[in-house]
Amino acid sequence: MYDVVKTAVENRDFKKVKEIFSQLNEADIADLIQGFHDNQEVDAKDITLLFRLMPKDSAAEVFTYMDSDMKELLINSLTDTELEEVIDNLFIDDTVDLIEEMPANVVARILRASDPQSRRMINMILKYPEDSAGSIMTTEYVYMKKDMTVRETLDKIRSLGMVKETVYTIYVTSQHRRLIGVLSILDLLTADDDELVGNIMDENVITVETTEDREVVASKFSKYDFVALPVVDNEQRIVGIVTFDDVIDVIEEEATEDFAHMAAVSPSEESYFKTSVFTHAKNRIVWLLVLMLSSTISSVIISHYEAAFAAIPLLVASIPTLTGTGGNCGSQTSTMIIRGMSLGEIQLRDFFRVIFKEFRISLIVSLILGSVNFARIYIQYYSDPSVDSFRLALCVSLAIVAAVIMSKLIGCILPMAAKAIRLDPALMAAPLISTIVDASTSLVFFNIALVIFGIKL
Amino acid sequence: MYDVVKTAVENRDFKKVKEIFSQLNEADIADLIQGFHDNQEVDAKDITLLFRLMPKDSAAEVFTYMDSDMKELLINSLTDTELEEVIDNLFIDDTVDLIEEMPANVVARILRASDPQSRRMINMILKYPEDSAGSIMTTEYVYMKKDMTVRETLDKIRSLGMVKETVYTIYVTSQHRRLIGVLSILDLLTADDDELVGNIMDENVITVETTEDREVVASKFSKYDFVALPVVDNEQRIVGIVTFDDVIDVIEEEATEDFAHMAAVSPSEESYFKTSVFTHAKNRIVWLLVLMLSSTISSVIISHYEAAFAAIPLLVASIPTLTGTGGNCGSQTSTMIIRGMSLGEIQLRDFFRVIFKEFRISLIVSLILGSVNFARIYIQYYSDPSVDSFRLALCVSLAIVAAVIMSKLIGCILPMAAKAIRLDPALMAAPLISTIVDASTSLVFFNIALVIFGIKL
Repeated sequence: MYDVVKTAVENRDFKKVKEIFSQLNEADIADLIQGFHDNQEVDAKDITLLFRLMPKDSAAEVFTYMDSDMKELLINSLTDTELEEVIDNLFIDDTVDLIEEMPANVVARILRASDPQSRRMINMILKYPEDSAGSIMTTEYVYMKKDMTVRETLDKIRSLGMVKETVYTIYVTSQHRRLIGVLSILDLLTADDDELVGNIMDENVITVETTEDREVVASKFSKYDFVALPVVDNEQRIVGIVTFDDVIDVIEEEATEDFAHMAAVSPSEESYFKTSVFTHAKNRIVWLLVLMLSSTISSVIISHYEAAFAAIPLLVASIPTLTGTGGNCGSQTSTMIIRGMSLGEIQLRDFFRVIFKEFRISLIVSLILGSVNFARIYIQYYSDPSVDSFRLALCVSLAIVAAVIMSKLIGCILPMAAKAIRLDPALMAAPLISTIVDASTSLVFFNIALVIFGIKL
Repeated sequence: MYDVVKTAVENRDFKKVKEIFSQLNEADIADLIQGFHDNQEVDAKDITLLFRLMPKDSAAEVFTYMDSDMKELLINSLTDTELEEVIDNLFIDDTVDLIEEMPANVVARILRASDPQSRRMINMILKYPEDSAGSIMTTEYVYMKKDMTVRETLDKIRSLGMVKETVYTIYVTSQHRRLIGVLSILDLLTADDDELVGNIMDENVITVETTEDREVVASKFSKYDFVALPVVDNEQRIVGIVTFDDVIDVIEEEATEDFAHMAAVSPSEESYFKTSVFTHAKNRIVWLLVLMLSSTISSVIISHYEAAFAAIPLLVASIPTLTGTGGNCGSQTSTMIIRGMSLGEIQLRDFFRVIFKEFRISLIVSLILGSVNFARIYIQYYSDPSVDSFRLALCVSLAIVAAVIMSKLIGCILPMAAKAIRLDPALMAAPLISTIVDASTSLVFFNIALVIFGIKL
């Protein structure tokens, strides 16, 4: 498909391009044009031309699916009238997203191209805190008064002619837009034409407040399975709705952000390839530096026990096994806890329950790992007369047991502590925990060695 | 709310409970009853009683929101007639989920309680591979012939009286159920009553095949923003639909699975607290054992260079810094690549592009880390006459540069290689990569040390 359109563009056969576009979904058209741009196979002028081939309502939808570089290019090449048409056909939340990702001079053009009412809505949404329900909502929804009939409501929906998701749920408001009920379009269709909306609405409305975090919005969607959730202010007045498709994006973005944090990377808004090498490096270097310098603590601890490994050099060879196992145990636990907290399965009040659970898990796991490791070392050095294989095996295995228990406890305490002081728990993940576990494991290991081998520092 | 209902149950004031239930969303009622059960505050008999207080259609919905232990309890306490009513009010996909999580004897009861047609549907869905589109679809959707009028279609929807999401999109089929078009309920409402469905339908239908992975389904949802996607067999006949609410669950489950894999834990279907200590231990021990035994390679390498750290004991103190930094770099890269692949941003054909990008990133990052580390060691040991601080700093910093570059390359090659041989890329995450990086970093480090300090083994 890509090549067919490319050839048609090269042959200036725009009639054919138009025909192909008419058979494609808007998201796929956006992919095509974006591809031409990314691969620099079609120049900016022709891309604007391709964009102009589409009917106005498709064009706006195609526009929303594009990356921000393409959006900027198009905004800069369209005439004022064309831009007004595109903006006019965008949902308010898409316009807000657009404004948030464009440079200031482009934003000015977008605002000029919006009608006064949209501009008011845009400004309202822009005022909500980042990642709040208010910041991701849209203001295009259908609302009715409770003394309207089913027929009047259906007529209103027909006359609005709004697209898709926004009409599946109809909100019923009292005076001053206070939200008092909700009904689905199916309720309307199956009710008597002269029935009053107030009689068939569901008064038990689940809402989110404008200032609630978008993660709360996402978890309400996955709990209640709604197509849309109404967003209300602190006086229960409806100010917008969040639709399921935006929530799917939120869920994916939040997970991506957690993955980045847990790998000690500053999250990026752009995709992997759209992010430059320098930005990637910048997003990674801070944590690497912090962690590298923190590892100096382990170095100091190890230097302190020089006498121990001067006497028993094989102790050194066990350091990677110990720190590796400790790090893995800590990262298992912290990952489980962090994920459990973002899914709402684990709450702060479960603090001691989690610690007790992880402690019991660590007992089982550490005993198995310790025993296997004991056997491995004992067998490996059994026939070597220069090594006290029993003591070495005992020393490393005891250290493993201690490392596993410590790291599982650190792995559950730190993320919950972070949550308690309102930090993102995902920051307390594998990299930081490994660094802490490295130091504490080394300390415990060498002290066990001093005792078992009777070494004096 | 919880305490109010609890007190009402204790006072046997079921009229009040019933009244409260009527004002709650089904998901919240399920939470309440589940809470009573989990905290063992209400016995099994009363839980069944609470369940019986609800009207039949709510009861089925409440049932779907419960955990599997509660579902099993209820199935075992309801009479045959009651169970039939519940099953009858479930969507087919919920019945299938139920069957998949229940023990065999309970499954037999569920199947007996289903009507023959549902049983046929259930068996069909159960035959699709796990995690395929077919396995998560439901068979309750609205389909029409293209020569039906808008009025006939709306009448059919009214008479079906189906709930929620399944009626927002209407599918148009030719003979033999071949899918030829799609239209939304809004298209119906805004069209003329006598218009033929065939004239207003959109012929460009986006579908998924029964055998496609549910991750593909999820990415199509997040690309196209549909409320439902039709599932077709290999002859383009519609066999079911997947709705957005199931997709939200899929996206969350897939992310949870990735988190678990990336922390070297076997994913669990149950929540953190519902999983027993033994199961948690079992899910974690296998990878820990594998990784612990693999770390023996690093031990062997380090033992091999005993002469080096016998001569320069401070080399040992740098091991945690080196392996830690290498591990962190590798985990940053692998996490970015794994996440990029699950979001579809990175494809296998981007293999060399990714490697080149990571190589350039690693150059920047390694030079910064190397320089800082050089300065740190040089300053720390500058005044210590027993240490050749310049050579030590040089040796560790060169090793850091090598470790960063190696680990970033390993971190991108392994997940993509896993994908190429159809393994889950998330398995090639921090824990495994750290273990590999530990060994290779140690090897490089001691060889650099041998050269710089002129040590002979």
